[in-house]
Amino acid sequence: MMAYLRRRERKVKRRHQVKTVAGCCGLLNDLRKDYLLNRWVVIATHRKRRPTDFTNKRSAPQSVDGSKCPFCPGNERKTPPAVLLYLKGEKGRILKEKDTDGFRHENWLIRCVSNLYPAFSPPENGQNLNSGRAVGHHEVLVESPNHTEHPAVARLDQLTHVVNAYIDRLKELSAKPYVRYVSIFRNHGLEAGASLSHAHSQIIATPTTPVILSNELRASKDFHEANGLCVFCNILEKEKMSARFIWEDENFVAFAPRAAVHPFEFWILPKAHRATLLDLPPKSTKSLTRALSVCLGGLNSLLNDPPYNYGFHIAPNNGERNEFYHWHLEVYPKLTIWAGFEKSTGIYINVVPPEDSAKSLKIAIEKSQT
Amino acid sequence: MMAYLRRRERKVKRRHQVKTVAGCCGLLNDLRKDYLLNRWVVIATHRKRRPTDFTNKRSAPQSVDGSKCPFCPGNERKTPPAVLLYLKGEKGRILKEKDTDGFRHENWLIRCVSNLYPAFSPPENGQNLNSGRAVGHHEVLVESPNHTEHPAVARLDQLTHVVNAYIDRLKELSAKPYVRYVSIFRNHGLEAGASLSHAHSQIIATPTTPVILSNELRASKDFHEANGLCVFCNILEKEKMSARFIWEDENFVAFAPRAAVHPFEFWILPKAHRATLLDLPPKSTKSLTRALSVCLGGLNSLLNDPPYNYGFHIAPNNGERNEFYHWHLEVYPKLTIWAGFEKSTGIYINVVPPEDSAKSLKIAIEKSQT
Repeated sequence: MMAYLRRRERKVKRRHQVKTVAGCCGLLNDLRKDYLLNRWVVIATHRKRRPTDFTNKRSAPQSVDGSKCPFCPGNERKTPPAVLLYLKGEKGRILKEKDTDGFRHENWLIRCVSNLYPAFSPPENGQNLNSGRAVGHHEVLVESPNHTEHPAVARLDQLTHVVNAYIDRLKELSAKPYVRYVSIFRNHGLEAGASLSHAHSQIIATPTTPVILSNELRASKDFHEANGLCVFCNILEKEKMSARFIWEDENFVAFAPRAAVHPFEFWILPKAHRATLLDLPPKSTKSLTRALSVCLGGLNSLLNDPPYNYGFHIAPNNGERNEFYHWHLEVYPKLTIWAGFEKSTGIYINVVPPEDSAKSLKIAIEKSQT
Repeated sequence: MMAYLRRRERKVKRRHQVKTVAGCCGLLNDLRKDYLLNRWVVIATHRKRRPTDFTNKRSAPQSVDGSKCPFCPGNERKTPPAVLLYLKGEKGRILKEKDTDGFRHENWLIRCVSNLYPAFSPPENGQNLNSGRAVGHHEVLVESPNHTEHPAVARLDQLTHVVNAYIDRLKELSAKPYVRYVSIFRNHGLEAGASLSHAHSQIIATPTTPVILSNELRASKDFHEANGLCVFCNILEKEKMSARFIWEDENFVAFAPRAAVHPFEFWILPKAHRATLLDLPPKSTKSLTRALSVCLGGLNSLLNDPPYNYGFHIAPNNGERNEFYHWHLEVYPKLTIWAGFEKSTGIYINVVPPEDSAKSLKIAIEKSQT
């Protein structure tokens, strides 16, 4: 909505001398539905905006006072004890440790702690799990001792530790009897909800399957029953050949979804059909690391380190095999505002067609790789 | 998410001298479901924030250069011709007019124009209405010739014109064969998506029933079939007696919903069971005007003119009577950011319990009325 008003304002200024403006244009925008969800989006195909309209205007990262950042090395006592640490072992091996209440490890590579003000908390003794309480876990995964080492610019080795730590926490949290789903996500930049700028992800374990996941599960099950194949495998094959294709290697494909809600939104899908990140073979971890590095690197160079959110979509911990589901990662740059129309109807307006987003991201990735 | 991190940051700073911080608190937050929708929210009951945490820090409204605002009087040619104008007639009567391509009325009270860059546009001749195109209308309703006369501070007479103009546009747009739903909404403040600050609402007519409305319709129909009464009438009776009650007169009730997604969110429900705003008797228009004025005025004085969105929820134009539906207005202050968790799961986190929001709003309204 804001985008429309802004463009009108700019256009109006440009036409300041013109006495009579033209009426609204007769061309019609696309109205597209998500592959699985009952989620509709208007794709403003004929009034599209260019990447430069969204380029982050910040000139350089602000200097960081490490002594004040609770996630910087030396400040370990400013957070609760770590539930997982990666430490440098002998001969390049990684040691996995935990802090205790009275002791904090130093010289870590990765550090995962409970959120001081958790949205979800472990059950107390005798807690009734059906009591409408937010039972679960809420953790912060500090991705590097280096304040600004976020995925788009991280060393590949360090980013591999991040992916491995996601899987370690997913494994431990999924094993708890009161955990139904583990959401692994990342907020990058103040506008995307990250008020602490030290590179970090978050992990929230919930006692129910979130609605977006349960809707995706139902739709992918229905598709499987009707067509005998996985809807995501099908999407992947089609999008690889479409104008929305961005990047691939032997294990992963990145593309802009057909009904993208956000400008420059893209998804990373594994080529192998697996329900959850837990099933990822160790040899594919490096490939996922490269996919993250390449695609977020492309976004970073295209729009000058824009704010974004990403979230893993994985099968829940519901006691079923969920063999029809296909885990993936969705990346949402935060460049526009959801306003009254989006919030009261559930219909979205995207001012950058995903075909254009894909083309720009593809070029940015190719440039940064040469 | 952002709120959690911010509070942690503040707390961490406060504890700067303390060597060891405590682990996360053992108390559990509420997990609540919307009355009708499959929408869950964590209510941070034990880590709640006060209204002062959200007070708008702007000291005074910026001065406005009316010559540059396309909605200010004198600039009528900077917009498409008005599809509806209210003009002063003789003896205080209101004349309803339209502009033509070559002519613009002046001295208007209300002015509704097509959006120069519409998300939805009328069908072209021979247009296939099932072609996945965003067929419909997208209009801007300029609420007053006075740039800053938004509902919280508007004269009651002027605000009555706004409500009447909503109903006039709703009537005209609903009669079009390709219109299934008419969304009437308002974005207030830059952070809520309004890049033009002149008081205005927007109206979007869509060719399908939006998902939020179709889900509400289905749920209210199911409730009616199971219980023989309207779910909203039932909510209204219960919330009138609850800690979430805010305000009422003979025709309307305002309350904070039990599973409010936003801090200081409130809904305004008509006491009379009616499916759409079109059924509102003229004598109730003034009552709706007062409800808007009083409740938005309370929000305005409580948080110093915060950004917000509001949207009407009405029965669609689907050829049915929808007698089980109950129209209402939902108001969402824009004080927090939806980040990776909300966007990838559909679960929300609200750091102000609706009971606290209601109490603060109730007091603010009582103060402003004395």
